[in-house]
Amino acid sequence: MEFSPLLRELIQALRCLPGVGGKSATRMAFHLLERDREGGLKLAGQLKAAMEGIQHCQDCRTFTEEEKCGICANPRRLEAGQLCVVETPGDVMAIEQTGLFAGRYFVLMGHLSPLDGIGPAELDLDKLDVLLGREPWGELILATNPTVEGDATAHYVAQMARRHHIKVSRIAHGVPVGGELEFVDGTTLSHSFSGRQPLV
Amino acid sequence: MEFSPLLRELIQALRCLPGVGGKSATRMAFHLLERDREGGLKLAGQLKAAMEGIQHCQDCRTFTEEEKCGICANPRRLEAGQLCVVETPGDVMAIEQTGLFAGRYFVLMGHLSPLDGIGPAELDLDKLDVLLGREPWGELILATNPTVEGDATAHYVAQMARRHHIKVSRIAHGVPVGGELEFVDGTTLSHSFSGRQPLV
Ligand SMILES: [Zn+2]
Ligand SMILES: [Zn+2]
Repeated sequence: MEFSPLLRELIQALRCLPGVGGKSATRMAFHLLERDREGGLKLAGQLKAAMEGIQHCQDCRTFTEEEKCGICANPRRLEAGQLCVVETPGDVMAIEQTGLFAGRYFVLMGHLSPLDGIGPAELDLDKLDVLLGREPWGELILATNPTVEGDATAHYVAQMARRHHIKVSRIAHGVPVGGELEFVDGTTLSHSFSGRQPLV
Repeated sequence: MEFSPLLRELIQALRCLPGVGGKSATRMAFHLLERDREGGLKLAGQLKAAMEGIQHCQDCRTFTEEEKCGICANPRRLEAGQLCVVETPGDVMAIEQTGLFAGRYFVLMGHLSPLDGIGPAELDLDKLDVLLGREPWGELILATNPTVEGDATAHYVAQMARRHHIKVSRIAHGVPVGGELEFVDGTTLSHSFSGRQPLV
């Protein structure tokens, strides 16, 4: 692309976005240059602000630009007495979007994975331990992923909670609502059977 | 998303990219924050540089950060004596990537579309007229799109070139190489028949 090094570099830089290959990056660059320079400039500013300004909440470790995230800074979220443990900030966002949970979170930023050198220290579980002892929690809800590592992590955190005499629950795993039984994988179906609820 | 306004704004800003909806934008934001802040910052810088720095080449109107693009600034590209007229800078890039064309370009930045108020003035055709008279062109190649507007534009430009006694050609349209005849639309197939070449 002899005609514009800046354009070549923009296309290259867009490829850092997940799922964006050479063709998509080229289409994106031309779209912004031809039709939405204002949007492109705005995106540049928001990217810089987010990459430089977003850190981890000192209480729950989710992403935030403040010392404490908006959830931890809100005293009402503590009143619920529920603490939900998740693997990533994306999990927090997904749960927040359901609008069903009014308690607090602790974000592990991963899961226990001894083979990759990720133990309790890497997940700041000592911080979770302090948090478990500090507030009068009525319930700890484990919402780690239903994977081998997620289950092992849930098991480890559950034992910590029990040492603090806190009631522990695990979110249900099973056939997705609207999903078709015959297309669900065997592991999910097993979870779905073992987690069955009595009909009342 | 009570926990981080910056994150919400980043996700919103990412949606200016073509083909990126709410789910993709969310995935992109988390990917950059969790795994590639350096790439995100680099992208922010390249976006700003491109949106602010890239303008139109004063000779051919393609995108460039210089007064003249790299192609127009290269005297060898004029020696070929060929001028290729295209609709967009993306067309220039596509043709450059074939490596088969050694001449110069003129980019219309659109096509004639009287109903949308796009006439010869909006496409800077007076500038093309000056360019046609200024250099000893051996051939003008029309590479506008094979649409009603692209064909009409090609026809108009061809008449201009003939007034300058320049030989005019149109790139071939037909069944894409590797394409299957039965899946090609009727218009393309008609072009393919009317543009047939004698076998030698
Ligand atoms: Zn927090
Ligand atoms: Zn140029």
